[in-house]
Amino acid sequence: MMETLSAAKAFDGVQGVYRHASAATGTDMTFSVFIPAHEQGEKLPVVWYLSGLTCTHANVTEKGEYRAACAKHRLIFVAPDTSPRGETVPDDPAGAYDFGLGAGFYVDATEDPWAANYRMWSYVTQELPDLLFANFRADPKRQSIMGHSMGGHGALTIGLSHPDRFRAVSAFAPIVAPSQVPWGQKALRGYLSSDEAAWRKHDAVALIEDGARLPGLLVDQGADDQFLEQELRPELLRKACAGAGIPLTLNLRPGYDHSYYFVSTFMAHHLAWHAARLS
Amino acid sequence: MMETLSAAKAFDGVQGVYRHASAATGTDMTFSVFIPAHEQGEKLPVVWYLSGLTCTHANVTEKGEYRAACAKHRLIFVAPDTSPRGETVPDDPAGAYDFGLGAGFYVDATEDPWAANYRMWSYVTQELPDLLFANFRADPKRQSIMGHSMGGHGALTIGLSHPDRFRAVSAFAPIVAPSQVPWGQKALRGYLSSDEAAWRKHDAVALIEDGARLPGLLVDQGADDQFLEQELRPELLRKACAGAGIPLTLNLRPGYDHSYYFVSTFMAHHLAWHAARLS
Repeated sequence: MMETLSAAKAFDGVQGVYRHASAATGTDMTFSVFIPAHEQGEKLPVVWYLSGLTCTHANVTEKGEYRAACAKHRLIFVAPDTSPRGETVPDDPAGAYDFGLGAGFYVDATEDPWAANYRMWSYVTQELPDLLFANFRADPKRQSIMGHSMGGHGALTIGLSHPDRFRAVSAFAPIVAPSQVPWGQKALRGYLSSDEAAWRKHDAVALIEDGARLPGLLVDQGADDQFLEQELRPELLRKACAGAGIPLTLNLRPGYDHSYYFVSTFMAHHLAWHAARLS
Repeated sequence: MMETLSAAKAFDGVQGVYRHASAATGTDMTFSVFIPAHEQGEKLPVVWYLSGLTCTHANVTEKGEYRAACAKHRLIFVAPDTSPRGETVPDDPAGAYDFGLGAGFYVDATEDPWAANYRMWSYVTQELPDLLFANFRADPKRQSIMGHSMGGHGALTIGLSHPDRFRAVSAFAPIVAPSQVPWGQKALRGYLSSDEAAWRKHDAVALIEDGARLPGLLVDQGADDQFLEQELRPELLRKACAGAGIPLTLNLRPGYDHSYYFVSTFMAHHLAWHAARLS
C-alpha cells in the first residue's frame, strides 16, 4: 500500500511524493516520482536517482532541475530517501551527519543496532522497484541509475552489481572508493563490521578490481568540491576503469562545488546521456 | 556595504546570496543575484523577481529553475526578500502568514507600528537598485520585472508605475486587484490605513483604470490554483487591459497549482519573453 503525500503538475507531467510501510527497513519510507506526459498505456523508462549524505527525496526534487529534461525525453525519475527514519530508528550516537539517519550508504547493515532498519540495499534494489512497477507505468526493461556523492556511490555499486538491469550508470561527485576514505570507512565499519572483505561489494573501485564491468560510465565532478581530495578521489575510479577497460567519461568541472548548484547544472546532460541508452 | 553570504558556480555563472544593512527598512536585508558568464567589462540586462507570501529570496533561488535560461540569454536575475525581518520588526499579532513578516506587499507602510520597517516599495524600487548597480555589472537601461502571487502584484504595480524603467513586465499567478480581494484588503488596510484612495497606486487594476500603461504584459496562471477565484482573479486584469488597450497575454494553464512546480515550468518561457525585450 502506498499513500500519496502530494502530487502537482509540473512540466506537463506529475511530480508526486509517496509514503509506504517498508518491509525492508521496518519503517515508513518516503520517495518522489516524476511521471512525464505520455500516451495512455505507454510504459516509460525509469531513471533512479540516489541522494547524498543528509538528504531526503526532497533535495533533488526541489533543487535538481530534472523535470524539463525528463519531460523532453519521457523519463520517469525516482528519488528514494537515504536512510530509514523514525523515532525507533537508531542514529549515530554523536548525531554525526555522516552515519545513521540520512546516511544509509545503500548497504544492508549486518551489525547491531543497525541491522534491523538500515537495509537500504534491499530497499532500493528490491522493495522499491517492486512497488514502482506495481503502481506506475514504468518499464523494467529500461532502467538506469544515477546519484550524487554518497548516492553516486550507491548508483555505481548497484549499477556494477546489476549489469543486466541498468542500461546506463552515471554519477555526480561520487564516493568511488569508500574503503579508502574517511566517510566510507566509518560507514562500512559501522554497518558491516571491520571485516574489510565484506566491504568490497560496496566499493565501486573494489567491484571493478574484482571483475564487475559496465559498458560505459559518466561522472561529473566539481574541481572546487571541498570533498574532492579526501572523500571522493575520482582518480581511483579512473585508474580502476582504465585497468578494466571500462570506458569512463570523467568531466572535471572547474569552479564547481559539491552542491545542487553543481548537480542541477549538469543534470540535463546526464539525463540526455541516459535517454540515449534507454530508447 | 554588502556582505557575501554564499557564492557558487552554477550554469557557468555565479549564484550569490548577499546581505546588507538597509536604510529603507532599518534592518539587515538578504537577497540573491545570479550573474551569468559574460565578457569582462560587459554590462548585462537585469530581471527583477519578486516573491510571494511566506517566501524569502531562497524559494525561487532553489526552486525557480531560472539559471539555465538566464545563462542562455545572459540575464542577471535578482531576488529580494518579501519583508523586513529581525527581532525588532513587528509581525502580525496573530502570526498570520499573509501580513507582517514574509508579507510586505511591496508598499511603504504609513501606519504604526509598520511604518518604521515595512518600506518594501522604497527598498525594491530605490535602495536595492542603487546597491545592485554599484556592485554588479548590471545595465540600468535594460531592466525588466516579474513576480509570483504577491510578488506578481509587486511586479505589476512597480512596472506600471515605472514605464520608462522596465522594458518587460510579467507575472505568475499574480494578485491583480488587491483592493478587491481578502489578502490585499487586509494588507492595504493594515499598512496604508482604511483610506482606499491610498490603495489605488498599489493595485494593478486600479493603476490601469487611473491611466497607467504598458506596451505589453505576460501572465501565466494555473487553472487549478487554489487561490484563483478568491485572491487572484485574473479576469479583472483582463478586463482592465482590454479597456485600456494594453496587450495582455494571459495563459490559463490547465492542471497547474500555485506552487513552484508551476512557476518553474513556465520560467524559461517568461525569461525568453523578457530577453527578447531586453536585447
